[in-house]
Amino acid sequence: MKRLQWSRLDSVARREALRRPAQVTAEDTRVAVGALLEQVRTGGDDAVRALTARFDGVDLEAVEVTGAEFAAAQEAVSASLRAAIDAAAGRIEAFHLAGMTQPYAVDTAPGVRCERILRPIRRVGLYVPAGSAPLPSTALMLGVPARLAGCPEPVMCTPPRKDGSADPAVLVAAARCGIRRVFKVGGVQAIAAMAFGTASIPACDKLFGPGNAWVTEAKRQVSMAEGGAAIDMPAGPSEVLVIADAGAPAEFVAADLLSQAEHGPDSQVILVSNDEDLLDRVAVAIGEQLAELPRSAIARQALADSPMIRVDSLEDAIAISNEYAPEHLILALRDARAWLPRVQAAGSVFLGDWSPEALGDYCSGTNHVLPTGGAARCTGGLNVSSFQVAITVQEVDRRGLQAIGPCAVELANAEGLGAHARAVSVRLDAA
Amino acid sequence: MKRLQWSRLDSVARREALRRPAQVTAEDTRVAVGALLEQVRTGGDDAVRALTARFDGVDLEAVEVTGAEFAAAQEAVSASLRAAIDAAAGRIEAFHLAGMTQPYAVDTAPGVRCERILRPIRRVGLYVPAGSAPLPSTALMLGVPARLAGCPEPVMCTPPRKDGSADPAVLVAAARCGIRRVFKVGGVQAIAAMAFGTASIPACDKLFGPGNAWVTEAKRQVSMAEGGAAIDMPAGPSEVLVIADAGAPAEFVAADLLSQAEHGPDSQVILVSNDEDLLDRVAVAIGEQLAELPRSAIARQALADSPMIRVDSLEDAIAISNEYAPEHLILALRDARAWLPRVQAAGSVFLGDWSPEALGDYCSGTNHVLPTGGAARCTGGLNVSSFQVAITVQEVDRRGLQAIGPCAVELANAEGLGAHARAVSVRLDAA
Repeated sequence: MKRLQWSRLDSVARREALRRPAQVTAEDTRVAVGALLEQVRTGGDDAVRALTARFDGVDLEAVEVTGAEFAAAQEAVSASLRAAIDAAAGRIEAFHLAGMTQPYAVDTAPGVRCERILRPIRRVGLYVPAGSAPLPSTALMLGVPARLAGCPEPVMCTPPRKDGSADPAVLVAAARCGIRRVFKVGGVQAIAAMAFGTASIPACDKLFGPGNAWVTEAKRQVSMAEGGAAIDMPAGPSEVLVIADAGAPAEFVAADLLSQAEHGPDSQVILVSNDEDLLDRVAVAIGEQLAELPRSAIARQALADSPMIRVDSLEDAIAISNEYAPEHLILALRDARAWLPRVQAAGSVFLGDWSPEALGDYCSGTNHVLPTGGAARCTGGLNVSSFQVAITVQEVDRRGLQAIGPCAVELANAEGLGAHARAVSVRLDAA
Repeated sequence: MKRLQWSRLDSVARREALRRPAQVTAEDTRVAVGALLEQVRTGGDDAVRALTARFDGVDLEAVEVTGAEFAAAQEAVSASLRAAIDAAAGRIEAFHLAGMTQPYAVDTAPGVRCERILRPIRRVGLYVPAGSAPLPSTALMLGVPARLAGCPEPVMCTPPRKDGSADPAVLVAAARCGIRRVFKVGGVQAIAAMAFGTASIPACDKLFGPGNAWVTEAKRQVSMAEGGAAIDMPAGPSEVLVIADAGAPAEFVAADLLSQAEHGPDSQVILVSNDEDLLDRVAVAIGEQLAELPRSAIARQALADSPMIRVDSLEDAIAISNEYAPEHLILALRDARAWLPRVQAAGSVFLGDWSPEALGDYCSGTNHVLPTGGAARCTGGLNVSSFQVAITVQEVDRRGLQAIGPCAVELANAEGLGAHARAVSVRLDAA
């Protein structure tokens, strides 16, 4: 990691230190993704099959997971992994359930009842990637809130393995969330199929889930296409910013930085501390731990350009974090809770030495689909309301119309909208 | 309006009847908007001034509204309009306040506390258009939730009038919402200035508000630009779908259809009824009322292609509405409340004969910035949470780590993420 001393940097250098690599999709990727989308849109299941053969190297007659395959998956997964999936699902449910948006009603004037009601999004499409490994945790993070929202027809796509099967842990997780329709389709062809529909795969109103640059570009394109689908959020490379003080165990901090770094060479990892010695100790610990990691080559690449920033005070550290707006923020501080009120923008925050990000990734209960690329300045992560539509309602009686009608007429006239005024006054005359 | 008999249409004709005109931005508009954005991004205030001279026909030395101008606006607005603005703001506050997302905390396991906390978006930019007329109501619909969210630095842009002043009613509405920084800048230049910042106008994290096709395209482009801004939602032409039964007063239904139609020639207006006679009576009433409307030419254009759909049953009518997902849905039914549970997708619903859409546009309390173009299948209108960031938090102690740590290790290993497992196990070893 690169060492930086914040107080010695001018504003340009500071901006540069926190600048994320531009997520510009190469023109040829854009064009290639567009062509693949079109291929599936017009070719349907045949195109999906052809692209699955081409990209996943497997020829599938039917892409939908059968009941027998679901049953076999339960057998194929170890009892301990099944128990972990179930326990994680339970905690994710508990947290998401408690935060659900509620319907409500208010009388804003006598005879004027205003309400908010909630409906599940009818057709949601969940994408569970399996790049370097399958991700049952992502199946839970998408499937649990979809279930709590009451989505009637959730559909999941996940890439097939070389033998033509779906990852059994992903199927166990899907089943735990009540998802019965899983398709062994990955990549751009999965996004296309769920956005436009094929004979086998239903068209969806909204698509969810992370993915590589191609999947992300495909989601972007279908979200803008006529007759396409809405999307949850653009997913950039994963990020962590750790603020550690002198008392933070260097071994823990190093492990947290590495767990982010192993995601991919483009992972964003930032360590900020007011203690020079802590930075030294973390650097040493990273070196020691790297040697033992299976994905050390990836982590090494990610860390090469990552900054360790020495600040004069923890106030400066928080200011840096608020400016950067990280996906994950770890406060490895002696009084982490006391600093929380100053956090203005982050996806998910981890307080103290015993709250590693990995717990949030899997099983604390919070969602791991979080805003990246600075989007945490404006938006939070997935939650049940991401799978719902909020509808407002007003029910006005004669008395209510008499109470607020003249106000509407006054404003409509000020805006030069005579028919608006008339829609009210014609009723005032009759009331 | 065109008469259609739903039972006689095949599925293609049905789809055609509900198809919205494609909102395709012409390539030359896209390019022109892009060039204007770039002009402001590089030229700052000078570019804003030049474009204001060009598009608004007024030369402004300084674009920010002064305290003296705010004071003068209070004088310039009639007492009755000031009272209407104040009363509308009060009801909008009452409704939005009651629906605010709340922070919460759940212990998902002993020693595992998960929370959601909320923060205002720091810099929000509100756009209040003034195409055919200024829109103080839009200033309220954006300003009230921004204030309730606690946004510390709200900024508003609205086009200058020919004499270089801002519309006084818009300023009165802005002041009512505590907005002190208003800029007399409109169109693409306003969106560019708020997205990228100039010496006078602060860069914003998220932009809100409706606008014409150019403003909408500008919002779309800055939302995708490196260093741009997030946006609330794409705004298409306004829409109403009215479901009326035999008992609906034709005069009211006609007035509601016309109040939507006067927005613009591209307004979407649909009437669905199970009663042939009602459709006849509404057609006659529209003819009578059109003659008296100031904006009758616009309304006439909008209505020319709008369908009146005869259905066999109200069940069919609701199904049509759910498929179309209108921005506004009026249930002009004898038992409107009983039909509400069947409504699956709509921006805002108006129940019964005494709840014209115009009340929701101005002062019932609900927000009038609503999803168009079918987006109501997946998203609701503006609310306080549109101006907030929800952040999740977890605080785990040793006991909590021991309780859920092994679950995370199991899942991390299943996903082949060794450093994730290690970030937990290194702590389990130490706990």
